[in-house]
Amino acid sequence: MSQYNAPLNDMNFLLFNTFKVQDFWQDTPELAESIDVETASAILAESAKVTEEAIAPFSRAADEVGVLFSEGNVTTPDSYKNAYNVVAEGGWIGLAGNPDFGGMGMPKTITAMHEEMMCSADLAFALYPGLTAGACLAINAHASEELKELYLPNMYSGQWTGSMCLTEAHAGTDLGLIKTKAIPQEDGSYDITGSKIFISGGEHDLTENIVHLVLAKLPDAPAGSRGISLFLVPKINIDSQGALTTPNAVSCGSIEHKMGIHTSATCVINFDGAKGYLVGEVNKGLAAMFTMMNYERLLVGLQGLGAAERSYQNAKLYAMDRGQGKGAERMTDKECDPIIVHPDVRRMLLNMRAMNEAARAFGTYVSVQLDISKFSQDKETAKLANAKAQLLTPIAKAFVTDTSLDGCVAGQQVLGGHGYVREWGQEQLVRDCRITQIYEGTNGVQALDLMGRKVAMDGGQTLNLLIDEILEFSLENQSVNGSMMKQLNDSALLLREVTATVLEEAKGDKNAIGAASVDFLHLCGYVFYAYMWAKMVVAVEDESIDEVTTTSKQKTATYFFARVLPRIHSLKLQIESGAELLFDFTADEV
Amino acid sequence: MSQYNAPLNDMNFLLFNTFKVQDFWQDTPELAESIDVETASAILAESAKVTEEAIAPFSRAADEVGVLFSEGNVTTPDSYKNAYNVVAEGGWIGLAGNPDFGGMGMPKTITAMHEEMMCSADLAFALYPGLTAGACLAINAHASEELKELYLPNMYSGQWTGSMCLTEAHAGTDLGLIKTKAIPQEDGSYDITGSKIFISGGEHDLTENIVHLVLAKLPDAPAGSRGISLFLVPKINIDSQGALTTPNAVSCGSIEHKMGIHTSATCVINFDGAKGYLVGEVNKGLAAMFTMMNYERLLVGLQGLGAAERSYQNAKLYAMDRGQGKGAERMTDKECDPIIVHPDVRRMLLNMRAMNEAARAFGTYVSVQLDISKFSQDKETAKLANAKAQLLTPIAKAFVTDTSLDGCVAGQQVLGGHGYVREWGQEQLVRDCRITQIYEGTNGVQALDLMGRKVAMDGGQTLNLLIDEILEFSLENQSVNGSMMKQLNDSALLLREVTATVLEEAKGDKNAIGAASVDFLHLCGYVFYAYMWAKMVVAVEDESIDEVTTTSKQKTATYFFARVLPRIHSLKLQIESGAELLFDFTADEV
Repeated sequence: MSQYNAPLNDMNFLLFNTFKVQDFWQDTPELAESIDVETASAILAESAKVTEEAIAPFSRAADEVGVLFSEGNVTTPDSYKNAYNVVAEGGWIGLAGNPDFGGMGMPKTITAMHEEMMCSADLAFALYPGLTAGACLAINAHASEELKELYLPNMYSGQWTGSMCLTEAHAGTDLGLIKTKAIPQEDGSYDITGSKIFISGGEHDLTENIVHLVLAKLPDAPAGSRGISLFLVPKINIDSQGALTTPNAVSCGSIEHKMGIHTSATCVINFDGAKGYLVGEVNKGLAAMFTMMNYERLLVGLQGLGAAERSYQNAKLYAMDRGQGKGAERMTDKECDPIIVHPDVRRMLLNMRAMNEAARAFGTYVSVQLDISKFSQDKETAKLANAKAQLLTPIAKAFVTDTSLDGCVAGQQVLGGHGYVREWGQEQLVRDCRITQIYEGTNGVQALDLMGRKVAMDGGQTLNLLIDEILEFSLENQSVNGSMMKQLNDSALLLREVTATVLEEAKGDKNAIGAASVDFLHLCGYVFYAYMWAKMVVAVEDESIDEVTTTSKQKTATYFFARVLPRIHSLKLQIESGAELLFDFTADEV
Repeated sequence: MSQYNAPLNDMNFLLFNTFKVQDFWQDTPELAESIDVETASAILAESAKVTEEAIAPFSRAADEVGVLFSEGNVTTPDSYKNAYNVVAEGGWIGLAGNPDFGGMGMPKTITAMHEEMMCSADLAFALYPGLTAGACLAINAHASEELKELYLPNMYSGQWTGSMCLTEAHAGTDLGLIKTKAIPQEDGSYDITGSKIFISGGEHDLTENIVHLVLAKLPDAPAGSRGISLFLVPKINIDSQGALTTPNAVSCGSIEHKMGIHTSATCVINFDGAKGYLVGEVNKGLAAMFTMMNYERLLVGLQGLGAAERSYQNAKLYAMDRGQGKGAERMTDKECDPIIVHPDVRRMLLNMRAMNEAARAFGTYVSVQLDISKFSQDKETAKLANAKAQLLTPIAKAFVTDTSLDGCVAGQQVLGGHGYVREWGQEQLVRDCRITQIYEGTNGVQALDLMGRKVAMDGGQTLNLLIDEILEFSLENQSVNGSMMKQLNDSALLLREVTATVLEEAKGDKNAIGAASVDFLHLCGYVFYAYMWAKMVVAVEDESIDEVTTTSKQKTATYFFARVLPRIHSLKLQIESGAELLFDFTADEV
């Protein structure tokens, strides 16, 4: 795999020119003192250095080795131990952490960029610190002060990692079916017993302790998802000073052999009367877990983007170097030209580029909403931003990962046979990226969440606000690019029309939402990506932007509107075909 | 991986009801005596038995072992040796072979069905007999009688296998760049020297000899693709009686470590002054090789379909069994229903089903053209069928494999996390299927072949004949399903319109064809699939067809027209965006 080059220019352009996050930082007491343009740029530059030099060069070899399981222990490749230490010692795990417990308190707009770089460098590796940061979010939001004091500092520092133990063999999407039991003890703790599967980082040799967040049910809990509680269960017990004491009754039964992310340990974790501590309220575990879900799901989107960005970089380099055939206009005077002369190679690369840069912008846009919702002084502003983030997150997870897989496949295709051979690294990106469509809620579940919960349940109100935002933007910026703004305007109206159609159909057909959901999520994705490209085109109007960026953004935006956005027209027709079509078949006939 | 069930019903329905191949067989002297409905059904039933029982059960375990390379030798899994013997002894490799040399002389319509079943059972395994049959085609068409007598019988019987040695490190798509040399010897043979890469089945331990077909250049050959000749180079030399004598100067330098088809040996093959024999005329090697290309490319399409069919079968079984969530209408009285109650799971399965059955029909349609072109007594009929087959083949290769990858990915998605874990087999299908978009000419090259050579070079004449065929068919069968035939008619006209637009643009822009090509190939694919579905709907009008088939075909056709075919509208817009858009970027800017 070729050298990874973090797209720092694009990141700085998005943060400070397109979204002007510095204005919000300056107006926000909690952020004004800790972050400004200079600090943020320095953090990103350092993140680029770490990911380019300490992680990316080892991802290919690490994939060949994978993680090894023997007698309950999981061994990671040696290169991972070095890389993990660099990440931990750099304070990267606590980047967004609560400063009261040793975190750096950085806004999501910054951590999202760091996460993308981590995932470009090595998606499987990025899961260890990524899941730890996620577990910290839940602990910080819901655990007692005592638990926070005992666990957060050592997790932010990377001394211990975290894991999320949700899935059981018979309960994945439908967590209401879980059977893991939590029996209250006299000392206020709980005895946790049950078996969890698909636990990323559930066991490994990177750190001395692992902090599991576990969903379980009390003996008298209500049936289904209303009876789920959340527990903190350390692999090794600790005393009141935080020192390690005895092993807890937690063991790793086996690891999965998977298509990709070979160096991420996906574990069966058995709890045999392990000591656990309640996080949040009894029976409100699912809600507590979902506090961090928006962050985790956005992270999964960034994982997809990370892989697709690396795929683009490899493919671009190959296309500039590999000679085969001749261009209609010759690029060299050799017996063949680099394959970038061929229109279809350009099409593949430009599709990747147009989608990746839009995904990065969209991730930033969602991060902006998350930051406003977390930091804004004004409650109404925060509430609205939260509603927007809730709606946009399943798109940021599922649309970004679906189209990132396409990007990884396209990047592999540019390399032809070499793309299929392991040593070039392109096929690893496809295998690694593929999991992002599946875990943290499959993309089908994300689509149901979007259309069922986020759109239908408020009668389309929040989506309408977002559509209004797009319509206003396109109207305000007609002078920048009239035809582009017109097309943006029309696609937003098309989305509004399709939404109304499905919501109307849903009144009489309980399957209408589900039948439309995935195509609807994709439709939303393309419309928001168009909005992102329009925003970038407006941003380069600023004369301070360098010419390379200006030209690149204008051309790529034009490409997106002409060659990518038209996909919405087929999606509209597919959605309008309705739910009856699917249920005209008996189960056997499907 | 679950049990494979060969889709015999659908195959028989396509052959004898949809395309009524028995009528052509009966009217064709070369076929009338050797094949009829009964024989053909018996052959397919036997092929189903072999693939279901002797091959499919071992594909998962074989993938884990892969092929091993040591000191020039390649070792295949033990299960492969047994399976290979069953296939060889059953005479399957010579199924389409020339009866004069021990082949069975079966038409392509039959062998295509057999090939699909082989690839569903194990795509990597199917390459060994598949490439042998392909090599036999080229030998039969171009080699001297002496070579045919010496080699074909032992290849048809499976005693020896064949390989195609085209690619070199610097010459893949652009074969004009090859450097392998052929020096004429006094005895009429040639000394072959050069290094070939990506040679499937170039070395293995399944048979005692391997017959390589090698592209090489004579010392005084013209530059580029006009100076390429084709040679037969055995791994072990044989005497005039066909007995093995001394090893030839052919060696395997290494094998590739790949994303998938782990048990297909992809070799570097070195020729160090190896003894070779000219096949066909000097400098006409590429044309000789292309004789078999239509068959090989159709086979690659069938490989994709084979994987997608297996993926559908696994996913369907899982969806009927896995309980998670509840349906809008309950299917059971348990705490959860099988996931087939969920609209989006149905959508994924129906997409797969609608595409797989159309692909099978389309493969049969192309096979019919190949059979007419080979066997018809009437030269004009044969010539027209050949032109149609030439045009349809790149679609059968690239469109079928592109959409089969989508099908494999969808089948994996139905299984959620289990789809990502190796033991369930779904991820193997994705990895195996992925190569079909790359080898035997990447799908981008297929698209160029379609639009540049097959459509533009005859001014759209052959495509127009095919469009006329569709228009006539839709007109003739309006009484069967008026709205469906109207939609078929409209989509054929849309294809005609888009073709005219691009051909017009191509007059002024040399990149117009390349810019449109892949989307154009997909557009053709969807329109021909619609034609196939319409043909099947007309075929079930026959009262002799059982009710299950009739209902299934009618419903799935309705689904295809409503939910899949609309994709053509976006493709049209994408194509119309033109070539300038792609070349507005400098190479650096892409």
